[in-house]
Amino acid sequence: MLRAVLSTEQDAFGRLLVEGLAGRRAIEVVERDDGAVFTGDVAYYFAPFRSWWRQERRAMRFARGRVLDVGCGAGRVGLHLQSRGQEVVAIDVSPLAVEVARRRGLLDARVGTLAGVVRPAERFDTILLLGNNLGLLGGEEQGRRLLRRLARIISDRGRLLAGSYDPYDGASEMARRYQERNRARGRMGGVERLRVRYRQYATPWYDVLFASREELARLVESTGWLVNRFLDDGPGYVAVLDRDAGP
Amino acid sequence: MLRAVLSTEQDAFGRLLVEGLAGRRAIEVVERDDGAVFTGDVAYYFAPFRSWWRQERRAMRFARGRVLDVGCGAGRVGLHLQSRGQEVVAIDVSPLAVEVARRRGLLDARVGTLAGVVRPAERFDTILLLGNNLGLLGGEEQGRRLLRRLARIISDRGRLLAGSYDPYDGASEMARRYQERNRARGRMGGVERLRVRYRQYATPWYDVLFASREELARLVESTGWLVNRFLDDGPGYVAVLDRDAGP
Repeated sequence: MLRAVLSTEQDAFGRLLVEGLAGRRAIEVVERDDGAVFTGDVAYYFAPFRSWWRQERRAMRFARGRVLDVGCGAGRVGLHLQSRGQEVVAIDVSPLAVEVARRRGLLDARVGTLAGVVRPAERFDTILLLGNNLGLLGGEEQGRRLLRRLARIISDRGRLLAGSYDPYDGASEMARRYQERNRARGRMGGVERLRVRYRQYATPWYDVLFASREELARLVESTGWLVNRFLDDGPGYVAVLDRDAGP
Repeated sequence: MLRAVLSTEQDAFGRLLVEGLAGRRAIEVVERDDGAVFTGDVAYYFAPFRSWWRQERRAMRFARGRVLDVGCGAGRVGLHLQSRGQEVVAIDVSPLAVEVARRRGLLDARVGTLAGVVRPAERFDTILLLGNNLGLLGGEEQGRRLLRRLARIISDRGRLLAGSYDPYDGASEMARRYQERNRARGRMGGVERLRVRYRQYATPWYDVLFASREELARLVESTGWLVNRFLDDGPGYVAVLDRDAGP
């Protein structure tokens, strides 16, 4: 997770979204710390509901009440829920992403980290970590910390929807090497140290977590959440977590 | 210009073309030494004649006889000329690019540098540096050296076709800064130090030259070439150079 608001030079992700908003074709470059690069089309961040991944569409049935969209990007998911009549608070550390989301109509989009822009007394019925934003958990320690923090702002019967994929299912030779290196360093196998680059802009490096269903189930233990179910489809899944009312 | 055959780990460009040949969508990442990244669709390297840039299509009227295609890639231009009945020798330092070009039907495709795979006694009627391959000139000194070497293997009424664009025409703020830094270091303004990246593969860094028409005209002086004409269209052009018969 990026822990601070991105500066202009760092806001590679937001720059990309500004191009996308203008209807220009733009490609996101994601660099990993082992020298691998991956690319993605900006169109993904603007996809309308009908062209979302099937399990994300299904996940929307579990989204109710007041929603917190963490890492909202261009507002792909937040705008859909707002159009259904739900109150949505969207946050992102990318100032340009928030600007894009606002211009697209998101009414309450805030620039900053969870600690920075969500008031301790605010409560949400649904928290979203979709579009691989389960990755924001970052790893075991920081993941458990973030889950606990989210549990403090969720309503009693609230839910967390988190999207990821199992990094061990069908892993390439290159992926397996990276996972082994992680374990040798005491990290969860599916943590990737990445940065987003676009033209002259580059975010700082940050850790993104991809977790198997079993790893996620262990990770949420004693953090205030219970696994309700996994909406899945091959390696990819959306985890539906319920607030753990506790003993 | 890359001066040696690429190793497996370095052959990012060839890897990309292998994906393209398989019909998979793949994106080339080009990284510049100032930290900027650019992307391009692999489809470009497989484009059929009808969808080429207009000035390249025009340039084909100047291509006759036995052809040397320098930096042939997937054989985009070489295959077109071969299909017109011309004898084409294609060279590339990317082993996988040459493999792709061969699989697509290029009959004489060679892995290596000019010095390595073209025999001193071979003669060509047309030499191609298309698709921005004027960039292989790399800079003033190495560019003049390469032009002289090409002049030694061209037939008496032979031609060189070289594609580039004027880097000063409509340059962005970022481009102007890069050009000024070049000049401060005694380099031509339009030299870019680049490397190609694709997934875990990365070429070595190499210098790519973009030159204005005036710069190119100066560069070719006393190298055995004369500017015949520029086929142009905005910043982009194809330079048609004739063998200088000399005094």
